[in-house]
Amino acid sequence: MMTQKLLEQVYEHARQSSLLSGTLALLEWDHHTYMPPQGGDARSEQVTLLSGLLHQRNTDAAYGDRLRELSSADSMAGLSEIDQANVRGLLRDFEKNVLLPEALVMATARATSRGQQIWVDAKQKKDFGLFRSSLEEIVQLRREEATILQKPNRTRYDSLLDQYEEGADSAQVAMVFAELRDALVPLVRDALDRESERPSRLPIEANFSIEGQRALSRWVAEKIGFDFERGRLDETVHPFCTTLGPHDHRILTRYHQDSYSSGLYGVLHEAGHGMYEQGLPVTMHGLPVGSAASLGVHESQSRLWENMVGRSKGFWSWLYPEAIRHLPSLSRVSIDQIVADLNRVERSLIRIEADETTYNLHIFIRFEIEKQMIDEELPVDELPDLWRQKYRDYLGIEPADDGEGVLQDVHWSAGLIGYFPTYALGNLYAAQLMETASQALGDLESMFSRGEFQPLLDWLRAKVHLHGRTYLPHVLMEKTNGSPLSAKPFLHYLSGKLSGSPAQGWAR
Amino acid sequence: MMTQKLLEQVYEHARQSSLLSGTLALLEWDHHTYMPPQGGDARSEQVTLLSGLLHQRNTDAAYGDRLRELSSADSMAGLSEIDQANVRGLLRDFEKNVLLPEALVMATARATSRGQQIWVDAKQKKDFGLFRSSLEEIVQLRREEATILQKPNRTRYDSLLDQYEEGADSAQVAMVFAELRDALVPLVRDALDRESERPSRLPIEANFSIEGQRALSRWVAEKIGFDFERGRLDETVHPFCTTLGPHDHRILTRYHQDSYSSGLYGVLHEAGHGMYEQGLPVTMHGLPVGSAASLGVHESQSRLWENMVGRSKGFWSWLYPEAIRHLPSLSRVSIDQIVADLNRVERSLIRIEADETTYNLHIFIRFEIEKQMIDEELPVDELPDLWRQKYRDYLGIEPADDGEGVLQDVHWSAGLIGYFPTYALGNLYAAQLMETASQALGDLESMFSRGEFQPLLDWLRAKVHLHGRTYLPHVLMEKTNGSPLSAKPFLHYLSGKLSGSPAQGWAR
Repeated sequence: MMTQKLLEQVYEHARQSSLLSGTLALLEWDHHTYMPPQGGDARSEQVTLLSGLLHQRNTDAAYGDRLRELSSADSMAGLSEIDQANVRGLLRDFEKNVLLPEALVMATARATSRGQQIWVDAKQKKDFGLFRSSLEEIVQLRREEATILQKPNRTRYDSLLDQYEEGADSAQVAMVFAELRDALVPLVRDALDRESERPSRLPIEANFSIEGQRALSRWVAEKIGFDFERGRLDETVHPFCTTLGPHDHRILTRYHQDSYSSGLYGVLHEAGHGMYEQGLPVTMHGLPVGSAASLGVHESQSRLWENMVGRSKGFWSWLYPEAIRHLPSLSRVSIDQIVADLNRVERSLIRIEADETTYNLHIFIRFEIEKQMIDEELPVDELPDLWRQKYRDYLGIEPADDGEGVLQDVHWSAGLIGYFPTYALGNLYAAQLMETASQALGDLESMFSRGEFQPLLDWLRAKVHLHGRTYLPHVLMEKTNGSPLSAKPFLHYLSGKLSGSPAQGWAR
Repeated sequence: MMTQKLLEQVYEHARQSSLLSGTLALLEWDHHTYMPPQGGDARSEQVTLLSGLLHQRNTDAAYGDRLRELSSADSMAGLSEIDQANVRGLLRDFEKNVLLPEALVMATARATSRGQQIWVDAKQKKDFGLFRSSLEEIVQLRREEATILQKPNRTRYDSLLDQYEEGADSAQVAMVFAELRDALVPLVRDALDRESERPSRLPIEANFSIEGQRALSRWVAEKIGFDFERGRLDETVHPFCTTLGPHDHRILTRYHQDSYSSGLYGVLHEAGHGMYEQGLPVTMHGLPVGSAASLGVHESQSRLWENMVGRSKGFWSWLYPEAIRHLPSLSRVSIDQIVADLNRVERSLIRIEADETTYNLHIFIRFEIEKQMIDEELPVDELPDLWRQKYRDYLGIEPADDGEGVLQDVHWSAGLIGYFPTYALGNLYAAQLMETASQALGDLESMFSRGEFQPLLDWLRAKVHLHGRTYLPHVLMEKTNGSPLSAKPFLHYLSGKLSGSPAQGWAR
């Protein structure tokens, strides 16, 4: 009884905190969508104030005492497995939060809220100099945080990575990445050789009505399973997905008139995130079991729908009639031409526009630079040159300016350092999940060609979504896939696809 | 020095509180615009939590001590007039807030956030029964609040009215209203006699593209002076205006395909509110001097732009070419026909669609019912019948159902009891202001016909906006107009307009 009472108090506290997180999410969402141009300064102050209030709640001493009491062996014995998982997760969060001074948390909130505004301007003007001192402040604050949270035998960078991918070890991650990189380099080279024999782009005018793209994207999101009763689709500069409440998940994309795919694949990606959030157990919202396992697992969902579903021939056999209804000029090219275009391998500068084959190389560049920034105190002044050098080394091209170079991603301006590796982890997890799913469900691609996405979504719901943060991410993935993190399924999928038979990737 | 230090601390505290109010405003704005259908429950909880946090800040004991110390004669002597006005206003707010238990504040926030959702449903289904118990709870909570705040020799209702129109006395208000009502009844009767001789509506098909209405409305809002760098225009069921920060003011309207004017006049009304907010002294944001004087003064601004500017012939002489560009069918009617249509007197059921002449009768009905609800404990069950009876008595018509009867306005569901009289006060203040402004600026209507709105806006900025809440509303209005609240300028304006020469209203 006493334990039950404690548990209720702890849950109530955590749920109230999640009301504040949801409010913060709204402040950010509005910042990126509808806020008037001059609203930014007050918005930064609002975000800073609420971040401080949230941190106060997260580090409340009485709450911590209750959590510690609950996590004693005696109390835990009286709890269900789900409640145990919640208590463990909440305690881990508390023990991290309580180490961080409120001043640091608020300074980071202010610096990153302002930093994003400064970054937008610097990127537009292609001038790293404008962003330099803001980034320096952010890196300094994050380094401070990393030092405070650093664990024995782990690097400072590990403690940042841990915030996005709990339990991950950057040394192990780097090993898997190295394996992947070594295999990717010849794969990319061969693919580029083959590409050079193909026409460079779709042989139609690159002019696709924004209205048509909007209607098509919304239609697709709904068909694959994103619930618009519990979510929205809006537009912004850099696509993202955010959760404001148990029934309020918002995805955002941007449309370019000269691309039929850029907006649509933004939506497929973010809808993957959104469907994961919508699949978390609603009654556990605000508690670990009702939260995503990690950003790596999150990316496994977004990359899976964007790429492994969305770039398959089956998917396009189904989508084609609807696509030409909204974008009539596509009727002048074949499904095969579109699928080839969407899977083209290219040396490119922009990560979020990169093809699936070269994509991870973009990640490795950022991962390596980040680690140096945090662990080796690389001065931010050296970033633009280092960025150019790594693009030469990995991709054989070089940005013409900082706008398409070191300034291209919003992440660092938002303080998200340690985040990038989760994209590559997500790609690997996604391939492992698709392999396992096709063993369970049969020929996925022919399901896609009939517009049948529910079986795959249901399987992901049962195997991934419904577990929330019950397990550490690598444990959850290992339970689901029956094997630890590996680059092999992803490489197998890629080679299958590049050899001209995309479906082969999921052959059993 | 000590005083200066205290002042800084008090200002800092008040400004931080206004960051929370701005956040609450965003939660409400999003609730009425973009929130997904199922997001409502969590939103109510977010609003409740933040209302509680805001109340804690507003009643903080150390803050109150500082304010009381500052307001001592010695301290006040060392302050500028502006600082004195801020301290007095903050102390008045504190003394009221500190009387209210947090539980009551949070219960009211929850009940009204939910109440608005229930009201939407009940209104749609035209079923007062669905809203009955929610309204009963809200009225009970507001009555409790009114009892706590009640002052000697004042009614409970006065303490609610005081929250919207500081210093107002409902007995005095009722006297001015009675004078107005007695003059309006024959005016309306005569006007209705004349109307019956005129064709009932514009002789064109009532089918106006929403896109055209949107473009025209935005264009007009910008031309009269609403700053879109510091604001937005969106759509919702019930038009409103809200402030999220010193440079973030949002107005909302709704468009109906069968009316060229309903959306546009929503925008003119809300832009009037928005321009007032945009004209408050920015450096004083979050402090009384940077806040609106009262809702009555607020309504004076919205009704002034909506009616006294927007329904004038001068305004339409200017607007006509742009209007027919966006709504081409208007080219088949003349400016005179449009102005006559916009100033037609009608027995109508819906307040926000009511003409300027009968409008105040709609207010008196609500004012009288509200007073009974709060002061005489009128049971909510009797509202639908009482509403019908009063519409028969005052306007000679009767709603067919509760949707166009007692359920028509959002206000009571949002806890806004004591608010309605400020609309009528606003009409009276607006007429007094226009009279004073035309004495200072000359022939306003010919300025409107040339699209010159800046002189009037500048005058309102200097005489009203820039003073914020420095003075009590009736003091501010008396200073500006050189005379106390009076129905005469409004009646003079109306009779001038109804006699067929709208401009005459502002003759000196």
